[in-house]
Amino acid sequence: MPDALKVGVAGLGTVGAATVKLLAEHAPLLALRCDRPIRVVAVAARDRARGRGIDLKPYRWFDDPVALARDPGVDAVVEVIGGADGPARATCRAAIEAGKHLVTANKALLAKEGTAIARLAEAKGVRLGFEAAVAGGIPIIKALREGLAANRIARVFGILNGTCNYILTTMRTTGREFADVLADAQKLGYAEADPSFDIDGVDAAHKLSVLASLAFGTEIDFAAMHVEGIRHVSATDFAFADELGFRIKLLGIAERIGHAGGEGERPRIAQRVHPCLVAADSPIAAVDGVFNGVVVEGDYVGTQMFEGRGAGGGPTASAVVADLIDMARGVAVPAFAIPAAKLVKAEPVAIDRRVGAYYVRLMVMDKPGVIADVTAALRDEQVSLEAMIQRARAPGEAVPVVMVMHETGEAGMMRAMARIAKLGTVAEPPRVIRIERL
Amino acid sequence: MPDALKVGVAGLGTVGAATVKLLAEHAPLLALRCDRPIRVVAVAARDRARGRGIDLKPYRWFDDPVALARDPGVDAVVEVIGGADGPARATCRAAIEAGKHLVTANKALLAKEGTAIARLAEAKGVRLGFEAAVAGGIPIIKALREGLAANRIARVFGILNGTCNYILTTMRTTGREFADVLADAQKLGYAEADPSFDIDGVDAAHKLSVLASLAFGTEIDFAAMHVEGIRHVSATDFAFADELGFRIKLLGIAERIGHAGGEGERPRIAQRVHPCLVAADSPIAAVDGVFNGVVVEGDYVGTQMFEGRGAGGGPTASAVVADLIDMARGVAVPAFAIPAAKLVKAEPVAIDRRVGAYYVRLMVMDKPGVIADVTAALRDEQVSLEAMIQRARAPGEAVPVVMVMHETGEAGMMRAMARIAKLGTVAEPPRVIRIERL
Repeated sequence: MPDALKVGVAGLGTVGAATVKLLAEHAPLLALRCDRPIRVVAVAARDRARGRGIDLKPYRWFDDPVALARDPGVDAVVEVIGGADGPARATCRAAIEAGKHLVTANKALLAKEGTAIARLAEAKGVRLGFEAAVAGGIPIIKALREGLAANRIARVFGILNGTCNYILTTMRTTGREFADVLADAQKLGYAEADPSFDIDGVDAAHKLSVLASLAFGTEIDFAAMHVEGIRHVSATDFAFADELGFRIKLLGIAERIGHAGGEGERPRIAQRVHPCLVAADSPIAAVDGVFNGVVVEGDYVGTQMFEGRGAGGGPTASAVVADLIDMARGVAVPAFAIPAAKLVKAEPVAIDRRVGAYYVRLMVMDKPGVIADVTAALRDEQVSLEAMIQRARAPGEAVPVVMVMHETGEAGMMRAMARIAKLGTVAEPPRVIRIERL
Repeated sequence: MPDALKVGVAGLGTVGAATVKLLAEHAPLLALRCDRPIRVVAVAARDRARGRGIDLKPYRWFDDPVALARDPGVDAVVEVIGGADGPARATCRAAIEAGKHLVTANKALLAKEGTAIARLAEAKGVRLGFEAAVAGGIPIIKALREGLAANRIARVFGILNGTCNYILTTMRTTGREFADVLADAQKLGYAEADPSFDIDGVDAAHKLSVLASLAFGTEIDFAAMHVEGIRHVSATDFAFADELGFRIKLLGIAERIGHAGGEGERPRIAQRVHPCLVAADSPIAAVDGVFNGVVVEGDYVGTQMFEGRGAGGGPTASAVVADLIDMARGVAVPAFAIPAAKLVKAEPVAIDRRVGAYYVRLMVMDKPGVIADVTAALRDEQVSLEAMIQRARAPGEAVPVVMVMHETGEAGMMRAMARIAKLGTVAEPPRVIRIERL
């Protein structure tokens, strides 16, 4: 049997500890599957004394993850520190520079400089794995890079943040409001003390930027992404969505726009994260709670959906170790499916070029003439109304009115919303949720 | 750029033709992804003149697929002839013997001698791919072999036959009877003229035997499988299942039974294909129509579901070419996740060892005392009744009675059914559908 793959684990939070545990517990199984052992030889974290439920005695200890990354006794570095800067970034760079394979779960870092890191790894002849950075245990990176690699991908989208999906699912099933459910999620450990990264859509956007690069052979372009979170989704929206046959999900959507394009032509790519209304009977609508779901649309394979746990120590460790298994087996596939040097710049397609249907919730004064003013604004921007519901009556007070628009352009739609927001009889900014036919 | 991978395609039915088309259409994309071209150089089929919608002029023609498999100009052979014997088997064997890589979509052949073929390929130092043999375009083979390889797998199950799923879905949504829906499926091309392979569960069982080998590191053991099809599922069953909160699906289920077991201990594996009642809100219940869905339960990753098109030219060609891409990229992972020489014999666990809940439909004479006789038979075998429904009344005639049993052993359950079948007041053999809590 060949020599062991010697692993250094930088970061011993939930994921790092689960990775060390998995590699110890399944050592014989992994040696059988790789025809060689995978062995943790060193670990690095800030606090050696902290209880983690794992025995760290067999491993060399580093206070400095960068020193671990440079250690000559390490073949592959697992970076599960997190964060786009600081020690995580330094560890990743140092590992590659020192000629080690790198496995990272760091979507923030990848969103910022994933293309550069992949090029550096390629130049240094080391392998880069980041299965754990997107959708936890779901092997979606491998699916795009290998399993579905025969296809030209038209679109990839999904539920990429378990915290948001848990909150939205709970809002739907209980009828409670966002702030209330968020507070509970924090108590349960499903949301961070500072939840903005998750609930404002940033985490999902980081992950989507990686999926888009893989799917379309383009450089990661996080700056081109349109990002909205779920703070403005209300219990009222869930009630109306249900009545209209929809679910509300925070989706990340990356799609190729326009014609296939010839070789050498820059692909036109739209990337966006925002709450969506999706048909209640669509497969993605059934992905509930902390689960993630990713859908890939390929020209030969059709529509594929992958569903599983998107976070947590066990699922993420499963993904980290899957990358280590590939390295131990000698699998050398380009990290982004094509040589990193050949990733091209996409031509970003801005959100105001979107064409689609829309759900709008207004709070309007319940008095004659209000709807006439609202519909006049729509007419002036050539936005066509498909349905309108006003259930509550409270003469002289503000009541919710929900409208569904036929397919229309985003730019005109937003101009109409700006007009409506200025009407004296409209009490709050219009809340717009895009309707996606998936 | 290295030399092209030179491919010979044996069989030009729907899948073979779609494979040739895909490789031609996506040649530049594939060359980019593999850093070398994948080129079809030869094809073999029975009838050269048949219209297939593809240009065959660029390829050398073989009437004999075995001659193609032995041709020195071919690096990798794609066998999409089908059938466990005859030319398909001869082609696969000849390709490996001649030192070619082999890609096959042939689940019947794999179920019969997949372990032997993998050992032969290993001995000859060639690679074997069969992503296309299970669940069409869904990359479930790669997921088990690589993406989820960090896990000890407890269970793998799924909807593995699109024909059955289409028939069952249509029966549910229309209330029509099996024979009627089958006839329609045949007209639509979703079922074969002789549909027995599909509707009797044999095709799903072939696929399950391959998944079980991969998941558990065991030799393929098709003979150990319990197989029932969907012929006896009736419109009445769908009505009752709906009332009870269930869907009816034909599932293939392979699971590890009992304790984890030490190294060297033979794993105890149950493999079965039969109609199941599953909770209407379970993810697998939402996989409808011709779609396939596969669920994998791993100890670290938790529950993963993969859903997509399980058949058809495009999806299957996507899977065939995924294997060719691996070969072109030089990926060399054991076909069954561990070296074929190390696959162990499982200890089969027979269906009569199952413990679970059951749905039973009886046709009984509507007269006093019948239910007392039925429940006495259950009591004598210690089978405990959870619910009973008799909706229809027709004194002196046969009416359906549905019973749901608490968790019980299969052996006692079947003895109780044998007793009930002998009762003079029971008009038809009891129809039993296992309830699976998934």
